[in-house]
Amino acid sequence: MVCLMKPKIRLYVEHPLGEEQPVELTKPQAHYLFGVMRQAVGGEVALFNGRDGEWRAQITSAGKRGGELLCLEQTAPLMVPPDLWLCFAPIKKARTDFIVEKAAEMGARRIIPMQTEFTNAERIRQDRLQAHAVEAAEQCGGTFVPEVDDLQRMSALLDGWDATRRIMFCDEAKVGEAFDLGAAERGPWAIFIGPEGGFSEPERARLHGLTHAHPVALGPRILRADTAAVAALTLWQKALGDWA
Amino acid sequence: MVCLMKPKIRLYVEHPLGEEQPVELTKPQAHYLFGVMRQAVGGEVALFNGRDGEWRAQITSAGKRGGELLCLEQTAPLMVPPDLWLCFAPIKKARTDFIVEKAAEMGARRIIPMQTEFTNAERIRQDRLQAHAVEAAEQCGGTFVPEVDDLQRMSALLDGWDATRRIMFCDEAKVGEAFDLGAAERGPWAIFIGPEGGFSEPERARLHGLTHAHPVALGPRILRADTAAVAALTLWQKALGDWA
Repeated sequence: MVCLMKPKIRLYVEHPLGEEQPVELTKPQAHYLFGVMRQAVGGEVALFNGRDGEWRAQITSAGKRGGELLCLEQTAPLMVPPDLWLCFAPIKKARTDFIVEKAAEMGARRIIPMQTEFTNAERIRQDRLQAHAVEAAEQCGGTFVPEVDDLQRMSALLDGWDATRRIMFCDEAKVGEAFDLGAAERGPWAIFIGPEGGFSEPERARLHGLTHAHPVALGPRILRADTAAVAALTLWQKALGDWA
Repeated sequence: MVCLMKPKIRLYVEHPLGEEQPVELTKPQAHYLFGVMRQAVGGEVALFNGRDGEWRAQITSAGKRGGELLCLEQTAPLMVPPDLWLCFAPIKKARTDFIVEKAAEMGARRIIPMQTEFTNAERIRQDRLQAHAVEAAEQCGGTFVPEVDDLQRMSALLDGWDATRRIMFCDEAKVGEAFDLGAAERGPWAIFIGPEGGFSEPERARLHGLTHAHPVALGPRILRADTAAVAALTLWQKALGDWA
């Protein structure tokens, strides 16, 4: 179940893909494909755009500032992950990048960085995090790329929350009995991961007060936020997602 | 369930710990405590050695080249994780470091870097990886530190294998029906994680031929080796470990 490094190059493009569809490359894409990867006219590349599956495409023109490919055939259908969001409090740069990469690999459909009371981050580089999600899909054969939102306050996120989307939150205080994910209803869900230091008391009280929010324990050891994210995604995918 | 950043400093030492036990510091520990963390005589630190639990200790002497602490009281008992080994093929440096850190957090008792047919690494820095396991325990409040072995060949590891230790291996080829971890027997186990590119055909055939080895699927998406390690540790801890 590790990443298959196929010899072929996989490239994410914004362009629609389809039978005999020509696809124009941007300057950075042309630089990557012809400059870095030394490809030339006639070479083949796998393209995906997050909507139309994966397509085998042939390079029809190559230049320093651009180039064009022609879609030949679809090699994989679009595989959309279950309706799961990952809402997390950004931590240090490398670990935030890591959480986004892992959420994309593990099949989250949407990634929402959220500011909690104990979150130090005042802003994030949304474009850079989105690029990490794209890269994770490029590297690991994905055909879907989760959207990464801009940073928003957890309080505002909960103010506008649709209660039909259940919340699984990781609570280090472990009060009351553990919620049994295996017996939970399927449908739209979100995982909430707090920052180093956890959720504040008012935040915990608010989450515990929501009938659509459920505390889930992640074992007897204390986990870093990035570890907790992967562990929570695993438990959810196994119990309610597409790992069953 | 995120890492609690308590104000107190946690320090791993080799020294035995116990009631009124004086603990001498090495030069690097003194540098860290007095130079980096600006501690002085009278300051308190949490000590653990992987064997005697966590102890509150007071600084009784502080110098540039050393110092001494006195154990005051035990603040946490030793918590030994279940009898689970993580055997993994080292990948790029940052991701190998990451796997060791995560295995320590997730409660593996022993970590074995193994060389497979598709592993590029010819050697590892065992001391550096062991230091990562120590740091993970220091950061996350652990009282146990898993041992990190030197790199060994997977074939030799299996030659000397005790068949009473079951193996859960992650097989991207997903042949046959999935093994149900939830119905498996408890006891000593090991998780095998292959390199980028997976196990070779002979390696897969050998694992599939062992009655004590069981293939486990990690969902429909392809995962990087470091992601697969955390996901596999989660599934095992939930089904057979101390997360139940």
